[in-house]
Amino acid sequence: MSALSSVLDRLDNNLDQSLERLFGLLRIKSISTDPAFSGDCRKAAEWLVADLKSIGFDASVRDTPGHPMVVAHHDGPAGSPHVLFYGHYDVQPVDPLDLWEADPFDPKVKELEPGRKVITGRGSSDDKGQLMLFVEACRAWKEVHGGLPCKITLLFEGEEESGSPSLKPFLDANSEELKADFAMVCDTGMWDRETPAISIALRGLVGEEITVHAADRDLHSGEYGGAAANPVRILAKVLADIHDDTGHITIPGFYDGVEETPSQILKSWETLGETAEKFLGEVGLSIPSGEKGRSVLELVWARPTAEFNGIIGGYTGKGFKTVIASQASAKVSFRLVHKQDPEKIRTAFREFVSARIPADCSVEFDKHGGSPAIQLSYDSPFLNKAKDALTDEWSKQAVMIAVGGSIPIVGDFKTYLGMESLLVGFGLPDDRIHSPNEKYDLTSFHKGQRSWARILDALTRS
Amino acid sequence: MSALSSVLDRLDNNLDQSLERLFGLLRIKSISTDPAFSGDCRKAAEWLVADLKSIGFDASVRDTPGHPMVVAHHDGPAGSPHVLFYGHYDVQPVDPLDLWEADPFDPKVKELEPGRKVITGRGSSDDKGQLMLFVEACRAWKEVHGGLPCKITLLFEGEEESGSPSLKPFLDANSEELKADFAMVCDTGMWDRETPAISIALRGLVGEEITVHAADRDLHSGEYGGAAANPVRILAKVLADIHDDTGHITIPGFYDGVEETPSQILKSWETLGETAEKFLGEVGLSIPSGEKGRSVLELVWARPTAEFNGIIGGYTGKGFKTVIASQASAKVSFRLVHKQDPEKIRTAFREFVSARIPADCSVEFDKHGGSPAIQLSYDSPFLNKAKDALTDEWSKQAVMIAVGGSIPIVGDFKTYLGMESLLVGFGLPDDRIHSPNEKYDLTSFHKGQRSWARILDALTRS
Repeated sequence: MSALSSVLDRLDNNLDQSLERLFGLLRIKSISTDPAFSGDCRKAAEWLVADLKSIGFDASVRDTPGHPMVVAHHDGPAGSPHVLFYGHYDVQPVDPLDLWEADPFDPKVKELEPGRKVITGRGSSDDKGQLMLFVEACRAWKEVHGGLPCKITLLFEGEEESGSPSLKPFLDANSEELKADFAMVCDTGMWDRETPAISIALRGLVGEEITVHAADRDLHSGEYGGAAANPVRILAKVLADIHDDTGHITIPGFYDGVEETPSQILKSWETLGETAEKFLGEVGLSIPSGEKGRSVLELVWARPTAEFNGIIGGYTGKGFKTVIASQASAKVSFRLVHKQDPEKIRTAFREFVSARIPADCSVEFDKHGGSPAIQLSYDSPFLNKAKDALTDEWSKQAVMIAVGGSIPIVGDFKTYLGMESLLVGFGLPDDRIHSPNEKYDLTSFHKGQRSWARILDALTRS
Repeated sequence: MSALSSVLDRLDNNLDQSLERLFGLLRIKSISTDPAFSGDCRKAAEWLVADLKSIGFDASVRDTPGHPMVVAHHDGPAGSPHVLFYGHYDVQPVDPLDLWEADPFDPKVKELEPGRKVITGRGSSDDKGQLMLFVEACRAWKEVHGGLPCKITLLFEGEEESGSPSLKPFLDANSEELKADFAMVCDTGMWDRETPAISIALRGLVGEEITVHAADRDLHSGEYGGAAANPVRILAKVLADIHDDTGHITIPGFYDGVEETPSQILKSWETLGETAEKFLGEVGLSIPSGEKGRSVLELVWARPTAEFNGIIGGYTGKGFKTVIASQASAKVSFRLVHKQDPEKIRTAFREFVSARIPADCSVEFDKHGGSPAIQLSYDSPFLNKAKDALTDEWSKQAVMIAVGGSIPIVGDFKTYLGMESLLVGFGLPDDRIHSPNEKYDLTSFHKGQRSWARILDALTRS
């Protein structure tokens, strides 16, 4: 029996005990955004520290101006890699409570449908369930072999659901202690119930609000129509010019830093069987609106976009008013990929807009955030090892996917600790994180533990 | 001394008395929109009937479901033309009262600036002052010559400022009695204090509200951006397509029925000295936004337009929300000229929009009114006579101008009585009609009376 298979056996045999431990953590009401639960947040941190100490981690509760961090260290064999594993122990609020089918802080195993058991409760998926998978994998390894296969640092945050105000200062102040060869982040999901996934890209974002000013007052369209500049018309023209007929974005330099997705990645996405009809069908649409000739998954995962998130100008109430407005405004955002530079794009956009404003009108810009895309390597050694490990566990090729929403920690690890991240998780699209009746599939919980054990094993082998 | 010059002398000599009569009418609070003043509206109608009877008109108060009409008839010499003269005795409300420098219903003559006297009070310009000019011209004619130079019917409405609900049924029911060779409408203005004007065109209007529907719910632009149709983008593209780079409207068939303005009319507009800088400078602009190569006066008086009166979609509050809206809408209006057909334009617009909606989205149209343009003849005999008469009185060439706002009565006279109208008035741009401190220049009042006397005289001559 290999070193790994005995660990996997241990995880199989101890599933009930691991579930009891998770339930213990889930019962703690660590809602970070509500000051009434500050004590519970600390209790969760202390619970984790005690549990990690019992495995032999050098673990401690680390105070911050907000909720504490949990930091834990464990040595590995000489020459083994050093991994920083990140998760968060805080959870979202539970209101509206009456929409929950059971007490959110009294976790249960429930049969969702024949043959499909789930763990119910706030945090079961996001992120207590996910982080405990890794802790259980470490425990089994330690119990079976008396040590861990590599050097491991754990960082569990208590403010992820409330904006992580203490995170950056903490990373900055403790960079020497926290820096590892790479980070593992357990806040993502699988493609579907059968298909494991590694998230390798997070689109960046640039937000801009533009306001076009024309006449110094609202005008009557009978008196001035045809003569006076109409800011709604100017704005519509500016926005319409941003995409050409093929969905390509026309702002000069916009595609600087955008790379073509490797063909083997595109091919692997094809195998997922996602079609525009299926993806868009869920929201009542069917035709991709982005660049022509690219699959819907490539469009949302690997291509940049320009989206108009809001527009307003003139009379928008009931009925009609023949007014020519003095101003009109729009909120525009760009999703970025690869190496696109948010500030260069902001500048290019502003020049693009300004060039389209008549000389007797003006435009005002308001900046709304900017963050670069995170594009992890498609074939780093640790990624390939993790991919193989996942494929072995799930008997199905692990896919490289991308994430629509942002996971700021990945950028922070890069910025403050100079580390790449490996994003592996076992959440499912129907986990209802942030909503009533959050759940985590028992299969995710069980095979997730096994997956991490396999990944740890794979990382140590050359 | 000619028949006319003795009438003009009479008007000059009786100016004070005519002013006293106007003041009598101005003191009546005939605010048509406020039911509290119903009695005052009737009182104004009765005042007019009494005054007209004193000149020898067969005048009566004619009940309607709303405020009464005043109808009066007076014969003219055999073979003389028959003219219907229209005005309205109702006035706008006076609030906010504290912005008035004097009681709006206690008219006064006031020196606005050295050498410029004005009559102050609600209705002094719109429309009691204007209609009394004609009554005074008739009175002088009658007093001097014992009769009128032509057959005259007077129609004074009491609901013009509150939507004229009774007008069309009244015209329809009394068409035989009211029909004349042509109508004269005294609700317009001069070009400036020195230049008399005849309004020969009123732009028509088509209003449409369009709502583009895309996904069946609001979407997250991270998850769906680049794939899902964005209704703001679709709408912006539709609106941007309506004008080409030269300001020309691209909707097929839009210019059907649009005629080129005769060159002598364009030349006469040039003599007015209006420039884009002057016209637009008053509202903080300087560059005409309409079709290139046309003067600003031609753009607002004789060219059709497409204007976007309002637009809304997505998140329009403070800050930012990375949403892709499920719908977006705009209010669009077209000003029409000459023989453009409102319903054909509505249909062409709807086809134009529908052709630009992706197959998985939809568009909804809401109709908001449609009326054809009124284009009066540039050289009918009565127009030319009136023009000469005005030119004689003001010692300055009368100009043919157009009106931005609508004067529905002109269309109604055409529809119900089959009559063309002659639009002559002596209001000035700074009369503040509908606003506090309404006034009417004493020169308008005096030379306006003389102008009408001259027009009546001119009409009877071949």
